[in-house]
Amino acid sequence: MTRLCVAVSVALVFFTLAPLEAAAQLRNLTFKIHNFTTKVDHFSYRNNDTFQMRYVVADQHWAKWRGPIFFYPGNEMRVESFVYSTGVMWEWARHFTALLVFAEHRYYGESLPYGENSFKDLEHMAYLSSEQAMADYAELLTWLKNNLEGAKNSRVVAFGGSYGAMLAALMRVKYPHIVEAALASSAPFKMFPGLGSCDRYYRRVTEVFEKSSWGCARDVSRTWPVLDKLGSTPEGCKTMQEKFRTCHNLEPGNYPEFRDWIRRTYSVLAMINYPFAVTYRGPIPARPVKKACGIIRSGMKTEERMVDAVAKVVNMVYNSTGNNSCNNVYPTANMHAYKFQECTELIHPTCTDGVNDMFYPQEWSPEKFAQRCRERFGVTPEFDRMLKKYPMPDFFKTASNIFFTDGSMDPWAAHGLAHAPTIRTKYHLIEGAAHHVDLQFAHRDEPRPYWNARSFARWFIAHWISWYS
Amino acid sequence: MTRLCVAVSVALVFFTLAPLEAAAQLRNLTFKIHNFTTKVDHFSYRNNDTFQMRYVVADQHWAKWRGPIFFYPGNEMRVESFVYSTGVMWEWARHFTALLVFAEHRYYGESLPYGENSFKDLEHMAYLSSEQAMADYAELLTWLKNNLEGAKNSRVVAFGGSYGAMLAALMRVKYPHIVEAALASSAPFKMFPGLGSCDRYYRRVTEVFEKSSWGCARDVSRTWPVLDKLGSTPEGCKTMQEKFRTCHNLEPGNYPEFRDWIRRTYSVLAMINYPFAVTYRGPIPARPVKKACGIIRSGMKTEERMVDAVAKVVNMVYNSTGNNSCNNVYPTANMHAYKFQECTELIHPTCTDGVNDMFYPQEWSPEKFAQRCRERFGVTPEFDRMLKKYPMPDFFKTASNIFFTDGSMDPWAAHGLAHAPTIRTKYHLIEGAAHHVDLQFAHRDEPRPYWNARSFARWFIAHWISWYS
Repeated sequence: MTRLCVAVSVALVFFTLAPLEAAAQLRNLTFKIHNFTTKVDHFSYRNNDTFQMRYVVADQHWAKWRGPIFFYPGNEMRVESFVYSTGVMWEWARHFTALLVFAEHRYYGESLPYGENSFKDLEHMAYLSSEQAMADYAELLTWLKNNLEGAKNSRVVAFGGSYGAMLAALMRVKYPHIVEAALASSAPFKMFPGLGSCDRYYRRVTEVFEKSSWGCARDVSRTWPVLDKLGSTPEGCKTMQEKFRTCHNLEPGNYPEFRDWIRRTYSVLAMINYPFAVTYRGPIPARPVKKACGIIRSGMKTEERMVDAVAKVVNMVYNSTGNNSCNNVYPTANMHAYKFQECTELIHPTCTDGVNDMFYPQEWSPEKFAQRCRERFGVTPEFDRMLKKYPMPDFFKTASNIFFTDGSMDPWAAHGLAHAPTIRTKYHLIEGAAHHVDLQFAHRDEPRPYWNARSFARWFIAHWISWYS
Repeated sequence: MTRLCVAVSVALVFFTLAPLEAAAQLRNLTFKIHNFTTKVDHFSYRNNDTFQMRYVVADQHWAKWRGPIFFYPGNEMRVESFVYSTGVMWEWARHFTALLVFAEHRYYGESLPYGENSFKDLEHMAYLSSEQAMADYAELLTWLKNNLEGAKNSRVVAFGGSYGAMLAALMRVKYPHIVEAALASSAPFKMFPGLGSCDRYYRRVTEVFEKSSWGCARDVSRTWPVLDKLGSTPEGCKTMQEKFRTCHNLEPGNYPEFRDWIRRTYSVLAMINYPFAVTYRGPIPARPVKKACGIIRSGMKTEERMVDAVAKVVNMVYNSTGNNSCNNVYPTANMHAYKFQECTELIHPTCTDGVNDMFYPQEWSPEKFAQRCRERFGVTPEFDRMLKKYPMPDFFKTASNIFFTDGSMDPWAAHGLAHAPTIRTKYHLIEGAAHHVDLQFAHRDEPRPYWNARSFARWFIAHWISWYS
């Protein structure tokens, strides 16, 4: 059992959570969804299958023949998520008279190369990779430029958050003739095996909790022995199952996975620790980490209240409305694609020791991880794959026109670049910011550093695409 | 029949002819041939097959821990050809204390992904592409750096001629973290559909003949009606079959293909019009175009002597020793791979009009070309494929550390860059030079411009890899 748990535990939540700033949902964004026919395999001639990739176009601000194309190379979500959560593209569109295009990443949302069978077996999943996705985007952009009136000479700026930020930056590197500049927000370019110790991520989560509320990390760390005690008996599991409203039966056998799910919940809170209310799976209050810390603290008196407090935090994240009948501890269908990418490309070693972080000891074992990937998908992870094929993480002196941002309070920033990799790129660390908050619509409650980050980025991108104004 | 002929006619000879400077063969080059196991498909997870890629290593001049790696990314020949014909790597190796590595391109030589079955059908040929080949090279170089003692921090300089020059330059663009600099000699980056008129190549061949010997182009153009007359009757074909010693029966039905083969022979002569004797399929004298022109001129008096003269030129190229029992008009097995690449990536439209060139009128029809590719390989050419996936031909402002050369008397230079595409690359046109002569061993009979080209290139490459001396 332990083996399985260790292997499962390395899986993190989505990089991109696409929480919606509550006000964003009320905005009346006008756009059209289209389909683009593209090849399933761009790199060999054996498979001539094609599929429909969804993409979104919004042209209300576009000045034909001179306005640029703002392009979102979709990552691990359905395309609509990016349309709503990438407010910066909408806000800048007016100034730049830009055309907005958002593309859906293959194997996510409805862009399924083999429809319902897309996740059936390795043969059908085999074409899920960053290179294939970028080739889709290159095809789409080339087609748009050739077929959309007034787009022929439009310069393309790629915007992306998290894995999407990697794609935006790598599109600029791999397709410089198509993408002129990129804004890459919260891209964990140093997440890969061999680039840093595996404890960074959860240490940063711990920091976010401790900085939000003094003593909070210690409080959280005190809850684990209590949960573990309950998790070791069938009766205790039954109690927790009710409190946490898990969809699956909780038993001592699957308790470790349940515990990891709670740990991931803290990580989600750190990622979306925004200064304004957002909607995740339901409404999330402004600065939710502080809120969570308050809840945990209030439950420190007895063991029972501790468990109640943890359950309350978890429910705040996944079921704030109370509409969900239960909470799903296991990955949902859409996460299947992401799990595959975690086994092939986006390999992110994580570990915790319970000393330097507020969690419990858990090692990262490449062997066990590899075995789990083989069992689950029939693929053996190549730990150096991304670093072999892309000039990451330092972009090897050749990258240009990329604006990198990170939030100082974002756990993923523990694996961020930390500085501009070349003299023709820029890096900006946003003080106090969580995961890619700078991509969202500007908010009246946001601190000054967010505003600064956006205006620096805007200035440089205007400069790079020679759109002086 | 016409349809077929037109379609066949677009196929040119190999870019890279790897003629050997006669003296090069006498040099005692010491090297070892190895095999490297790599994936048949680097871009999806469906096919886990691997194959053995051959590569050559020569380390007699190498200074471990500080010498660079000079790497030849093989193109459409067996690897040994490059070992002997890329003398510049051997000559510079001593000065740079470099390790020499030459890799064989998949589907050429003995690096056949599916052995004898490699060309059986599309399913087996599907993995023949520049991207897959470059991924092989990236794997090999990464492996060498990690496993060869003293290679860990060696800077890699890629050398290539013709299609190999494209690969060398594109390796620098696509894998800047692996390849630090490149010498790209005679790369026809503007050969692709839509970039220039189709008559350029054979007009340049005509120029080479005319410049080598005044009136030669006119003489050659006068031979076609004579050949055509013979080609129109079975008896005439029989006569020519004997004179040209063709392996196949020559008939009016396949005469057009035979005629194209003669045209290609003139193009070969222009490509290897070096100031020193070389070995191609047999010994070729120095400045062979002048020699050929003399032969043709001497045959101008009667129609029969004209045919004899053309036959003599053809035999000079393919059978100078007289050892071959016959001349093969049709592509050989190894050309099968190249024909496939001509249908998929290296699409080079050529046409002649008999007015501005010394040949006969022949149009280029994309439709017929596409149909022929479908019939032959089951693939439909994507005419913009290369330009969509690579930042060619102008390298879109981002390329660096590439030294491009062209020979002013090389027919392929008609599709060369003609200038440095970015400020961090260099371009050098070598006055009077034929196809990638600058990659060969320096020769006592070579003109000053060759020496200049090599020393400029050497200086810049030393500078780019910071090997000041």
